[in-house]
Amino acid sequence: MEMASLSEGLTQVLIPAAALVGIVFALIQWYLVSKVKVSNEPGSNGYNDRLIEEEESEEGVNSLEVSIKCAEIQNAISVGATSFLFTQYKYLSVFMGVFSLIIFLFLGSVKGFSTKSEPCTYNTGNVCKPALANAFFSTVAFLLGALTSTLSGFLGMKIATYANARTTLEAKKGVGKAFIAAFRSGAVMGFLLAANGLFVLYVSINLFKLYYGDDWEGLYESITGYGLGGSSMALFGRVGGGIYTKAADVGADLVGKVERNIPEDDPRNPAVIADNVGDNVGDIAGMGSDLFGSYAESSCAALFVASISSFGINHNYAAMSYPLIVSSMGIVVCLITALFATDLFEIKSVNEIEPTLKRQLLISTVLMTAGIAMVTFFALPSEFTLYDFGTEKTVKNWYLFFCVAIGLWAGLAIGYTTEYYTSNAYSPVQDVADSCRTGAATNVIFGLALGYKSVIIPIFSIAVAIYVSFSLAAMYGIAVAALGMLSTIATGLAIDAYGPISDNAGGIAEMAGMSHKIRERTDALDAAGNTTAAIGKGFAIGSAALVSLALFGAFVSRAGLKTVDVLTPKVFIGLIVGAMLPYWFSAMTMKSVGSAALKMVEEVRRQFNTIPGLMEGRAKPDYATCVKISTDASLREMIPPGALVMLTPLIAGTLFGVETLAGVLAGSLVSGVQVAISASNTGGAWDNAKKYIEAGGSEHAKSLGPKGSDAHKAAVIGDTIGDPLKDTSGPSLNILIKLMAVESLVFAPFFAAHGGFLFKLL
Amino acid sequence: MEMASLSEGLTQVLIPAAALVGIVFALIQWYLVSKVKVSNEPGSNGYNDRLIEEEESEEGVNSLEVSIKCAEIQNAISVGATSFLFTQYKYLSVFMGVFSLIIFLFLGSVKGFSTKSEPCTYNTGNVCKPALANAFFSTVAFLLGALTSTLSGFLGMKIATYANARTTLEAKKGVGKAFIAAFRSGAVMGFLLAANGLFVLYVSINLFKLYYGDDWEGLYESITGYGLGGSSMALFGRVGGGIYTKAADVGADLVGKVERNIPEDDPRNPAVIADNVGDNVGDIAGMGSDLFGSYAESSCAALFVASISSFGINHNYAAMSYPLIVSSMGIVVCLITALFATDLFEIKSVNEIEPTLKRQLLISTVLMTAGIAMVTFFALPSEFTLYDFGTEKTVKNWYLFFCVAIGLWAGLAIGYTTEYYTSNAYSPVQDVADSCRTGAATNVIFGLALGYKSVIIPIFSIAVAIYVSFSLAAMYGIAVAALGMLSTIATGLAIDAYGPISDNAGGIAEMAGMSHKIRERTDALDAAGNTTAAIGKGFAIGSAALVSLALFGAFVSRAGLKTVDVLTPKVFIGLIVGAMLPYWFSAMTMKSVGSAALKMVEEVRRQFNTIPGLMEGRAKPDYATCVKISTDASLREMIPPGALVMLTPLIAGTLFGVETLAGVLAGSLVSGVQVAISASNTGGAWDNAKKYIEAGGSEHAKSLGPKGSDAHKAAVIGDTIGDPLKDTSGPSLNILIKLMAVESLVFAPFFAAHGGFLFKLL
Repeated sequence: MEMASLSEGLTQVLIPAAALVGIVFALIQWYLVSKVKVSNEPGSNGYNDRLIEEEESEEGVNSLEVSIKCAEIQNAISVGATSFLFTQYKYLSVFMGVFSLIIFLFLGSVKGFSTKSEPCTYNTGNVCKPALANAFFSTVAFLLGALTSTLSGFLGMKIATYANARTTLEAKKGVGKAFIAAFRSGAVMGFLLAANGLFVLYVSINLFKLYYGDDWEGLYESITGYGLGGSSMALFGRVGGGIYTKAADVGADLVGKVERNIPEDDPRNPAVIADNVGDNVGDIAGMGSDLFGSYAESSCAALFVASISSFGINHNYAAMSYPLIVSSMGIVVCLITALFATDLFEIKSVNEIEPTLKRQLLISTVLMTAGIAMVTFFALPSEFTLYDFGTEKTVKNWYLFFCVAIGLWAGLAIGYTTEYYTSNAYSPVQDVADSCRTGAATNVIFGLALGYKSVIIPIFSIAVAIYVSFSLAAMYGIAVAALGMLSTIATGLAIDAYGPISDNAGGIAEMAGMSHKIRERTDALDAAGNTTAAIGKGFAIGSAALVSLALFGAFVSRAGLKTVDVLTPKVFIGLIVGAMLPYWFSAMTMKSVGSAALKMVEEVRRQFNTIPGLMEGRAKPDYATCVKISTDASLREMIPPGALVMLTPLIAGTLFGVETLAGVLAGSLVSGVQVAISASNTGGAWDNAKKYIEAGGSEHAKSLGPKGSDAHKAAVIGDTIGDPLKDTSGPSLNILIKLMAVESLVFAPFFAAHGGFLFKLL
Repeated sequence: MEMASLSEGLTQVLIPAAALVGIVFALIQWYLVSKVKVSNEPGSNGYNDRLIEEEESEEGVNSLEVSIKCAEIQNAISVGATSFLFTQYKYLSVFMGVFSLIIFLFLGSVKGFSTKSEPCTYNTGNVCKPALANAFFSTVAFLLGALTSTLSGFLGMKIATYANARTTLEAKKGVGKAFIAAFRSGAVMGFLLAANGLFVLYVSINLFKLYYGDDWEGLYESITGYGLGGSSMALFGRVGGGIYTKAADVGADLVGKVERNIPEDDPRNPAVIADNVGDNVGDIAGMGSDLFGSYAESSCAALFVASISSFGINHNYAAMSYPLIVSSMGIVVCLITALFATDLFEIKSVNEIEPTLKRQLLISTVLMTAGIAMVTFFALPSEFTLYDFGTEKTVKNWYLFFCVAIGLWAGLAIGYTTEYYTSNAYSPVQDVADSCRTGAATNVIFGLALGYKSVIIPIFSIAVAIYVSFSLAAMYGIAVAALGMLSTIATGLAIDAYGPISDNAGGIAEMAGMSHKIRERTDALDAAGNTTAAIGKGFAIGSAALVSLALFGAFVSRAGLKTVDVLTPKVFIGLIVGAMLPYWFSAMTMKSVGSAALKMVEEVRRQFNTIPGLMEGRAKPDYATCVKISTDASLREMIPPGALVMLTPLIAGTLFGVETLAGVLAGSLVSGVQVAISASNTGGAWDNAKKYIEAGGSEHAKSLGPKGSDAHKAAVIGDTIGDPLKDTSGPSLNILIKLMAVESLVFAPFFAAHGGFLFKLL
């Protein structure tokens, strides 16, 4: 077998180098953002910024006052978000402790806690480390993944709450400046996450290797715990954050916009701070954890599958590290891409925002295609064999180029489709807006239909990607296709995080009482942000589908199954029950948001009714109570859906065995993807249909508006319904399908040894 | 092998005898309903009823006038429905002609139109009829199925439009009398359909046998065309009828109830006749065709699977006819059950309506369990072998008792769960009603969550039924479990048809200007009808799931596949695309209803604005234009979703081959069931949440009402959104999954011979 041209030594240098480049680039962006000064009590939020006056400001007279108000609001949001996350982490540390124990005990029991070495499963003839060691290292990897995920979410939140007021202040200078501020902040998050994820994984592998030595099977088996840790934190982050943000948002809108007829983000609304905190803990911290989880899982799935291929058997380190090298290249490509947005082009009008963001996706995809070709030919031997459910498959290195590339391009197709269905520049959203003419009911009917329809192209894209990569390189092909889709994660996260930052910036502008002109600019940033948020969700879901399939394949391999035959009752009942789980899960999360929103509505109404002078702006509302309602609801309500996801694989595997569990995974995957895409696009479309009417940018839009018209009221109802769909249920579902798959993979040795208890009994 | 105690001769007598008993019973019920006289211009609708005056009527003075008005309205509805159905049949006859040709050509080409006899596939050693004969008889069976389905729908509509005004008039005498009139009419439909379906199938088999003789494989292969014919008509009936009824309903409500604040079914509303016509063509004719299709398909699936078991090989006629004997017993059991409702108990207050209907389900299930035991032991040999995807499986006759019984009881579980989630007597609907307090948005969020949640128990019930029957008797077990669920179809249809009849009765009462008291009674009948309609849909979906699985199994057998392995790319892409189809389909139907409703709204608004004196009741609206809008929309819009369903198996099978098609079927089955159940229960719950507020039957309900309150307005919006979900998209989906499966089964020999064109090319 011909060897690749990349040596082990060079590989060992390139991967951490790419990670460091990413981190340095993120820090530079942060530095550039920090040059925008926000007036502040020194030390209040730890940034110690100097108060400066914007002499060239368009606001003129009130500039100082406005700037101070911005700082106050920013501080309130930052404190609220930090305190929520710390409370959440307290709960989650208990969960992590308990679940670590479960992992250790379940996996340890596979060989009865024996400390004896075992013959390897795939690399026959060799001796591998004992199952107990795998149990221990899986637990450690789980904890590392959980910590990295937590850190990712936390850093994202910190950056976003640092950037929001700065974006508002930059909006005074023009839309281009504001865009750059928001985009740079998004980039900080994107690059930190991508680089950090890669770096921790790389270091962990090398540390684990000190113990495992030549036992690569055991090493990469244990590393899968990293993915599990990452995704379980992401689940709670998404669900908890999603409930938090939408309880506040729905509650604020129902009383403020619908009953009291005051604008969104009006400072008189008691739930307004909770709403803005929510954007940061849900859309930023949650999304960060989520995409980090996808990235960690697809890397782990690819590494595990590779470890039982000829790379692993022959100890070809460079080939084995192919998934990490692809990600390294991704960081470099995204870095170049980011420069296009921040330095090469300049945004002069609001119409250029969306095209610029869209162009980012295209540029990174095109550059990355070339990048993949490079790393594929340098890192991989020209021919190698892969394990394919009991048989061996011979694969050429250029096959893998196609696998990664098709994942990458499928991601772009999904991104563009999502944009088409959720941006108000195209007819689908405009049709939904038009249906508001006849009231909320038709708006909802058209919106639901739009969401359903938006599933078609993404699913065909995913199907093509699966078919091509599966045919070329079996489950390894799927895993690297997922990595391909996620290889531009830094760009994806940058334009995704841009959304909530702009949303917050708009909120701060409104609360600080800035001029209409500035609010118009932040609104335009925000409308583009809704679309990019939907695109980000599209990526998250599409990659989740591929990742889950790869994990599913790895699970099946590890559980020793040769087929998953729909024509056996065990598998079929798994399939149909699995397809039901996304509904069960959505029912829980939707109801949670609904109930929490009801409580919020009551509190907001109570404050309006009992605090004298609140409506007139003479008295301050009690923001803290609303924050507390959101916090309590989200912490309480994240437990049942979390338990559903975490317990299902354990119960199915233990009681019904690996065949049924395989059915459950396949069923939840094929059904969950549809629910997730349609929910997130329906919600995005409703939000932008409302914005379309509010902006009144065309004759058609004007005929539906202005704010407060019957059509606009109908649009607000749609927007409110869409909130939990697009920000709680929808995006949590991709974690559901990934997490169940990675959990099954980690516990596979246990299920294979002791599972199917109930069927054995019958 | 021990033989069963039932001889061929006795079987040949018992089956048609049961069918005739069913028909006679239906005619007796019809006669009893016809004793209620409606005043009418003689001969105007062909019934030639004498005008009588109800001396004992509570209405007193205006009785004659009211009665004449009832007759007029009934006539208008009947004429509208008949004319729509005939127009629809004109279109469908073109489709039937074209599709007959496709069937004949595709199946004829399997062996190149050769007229030579072939060696049998399963009964090795014997000689079977040529493929060309199978092509011809499949085509004939297709046409017979289509005609029987059409007849079923048409008769149902005739009965319902005959019964509606009679129910209204009986409501003058009391709620008990009105209930009996509506229930008897439902029973006419239920028994006619069940008996007719059985009879035509029985006769066809015997006629086909004249040609096929000992070639049972070919005979029962051809008979599957009957199921295909039945279901394709059902598809267009459901979709076309569903769009018709909901375009009218949504359009009428949006202007009448929301904008003009006039009651439902107010005669001033121009869309009111179209709305009532819609109930009959959608909920009655569509539902009739649908359940007939399920029944025909599950019989065909069971018969086909049986023909390749030891029954078929050994030519054991009684055992072979087991599916038909189970249905025969079902007719007898339902007959006894019906007497409980009409003769043994009497309804004295509105609170007794729902429990009585619920009791019908329980009685028929209990009696049928005994009935199944009887026919199982008499008709089946104590032991026999079944074909199980390449292997033989030995089965004892009491296994089959469990298979049929578990299907039956799973149906009851689904029915009761549906009732719990859609009746306003329980907390789920009351919670949804309560959420209207904070507006339409929370109502929609809670309603969607309710629908999602309502999926859990039905899916577990179906999963248990599948596991037990699959484990006991492979695919034959599934087929007879489906038959078990449908064995009480006469009862199911009776309580299901009862709903739209009551709905119409209420409409007529309102339009004829009857007293508030009578409207209250018909409203109570109608509220129970919403629940029973949801139960009927639950049955239709549950049985569709089992039927599709059985058909899927038969297709796989016939296509010669031994496994359907999710771990192959061909199958997996089928699975994920199949899971997407229900969304695509729903997008089309929802959008169709939305667009048609918009047109209807414009027309209704136009009439209110341009016809002087319409609002004051001095001028008559132009009902005909609204009827035309619904008719045109439904005929035009039923084509794309119809094409999607009919073409998918042909395209998938021809281009991608049987493995991918098998994946598509499994995917659409496991995903479609969830969408269908949640859509239909969400819609039912919203409808009854609205009725709950309107009725004001408790302190809680009163606090939300009365009609016209903000909470009530929010509830009306929910109800309107639910209309297309529960009456167009949801119930059409079960036809989608059945129809694709039966079509694949019919075309299986073609796909196996010539399919997978595209993959062969690559």
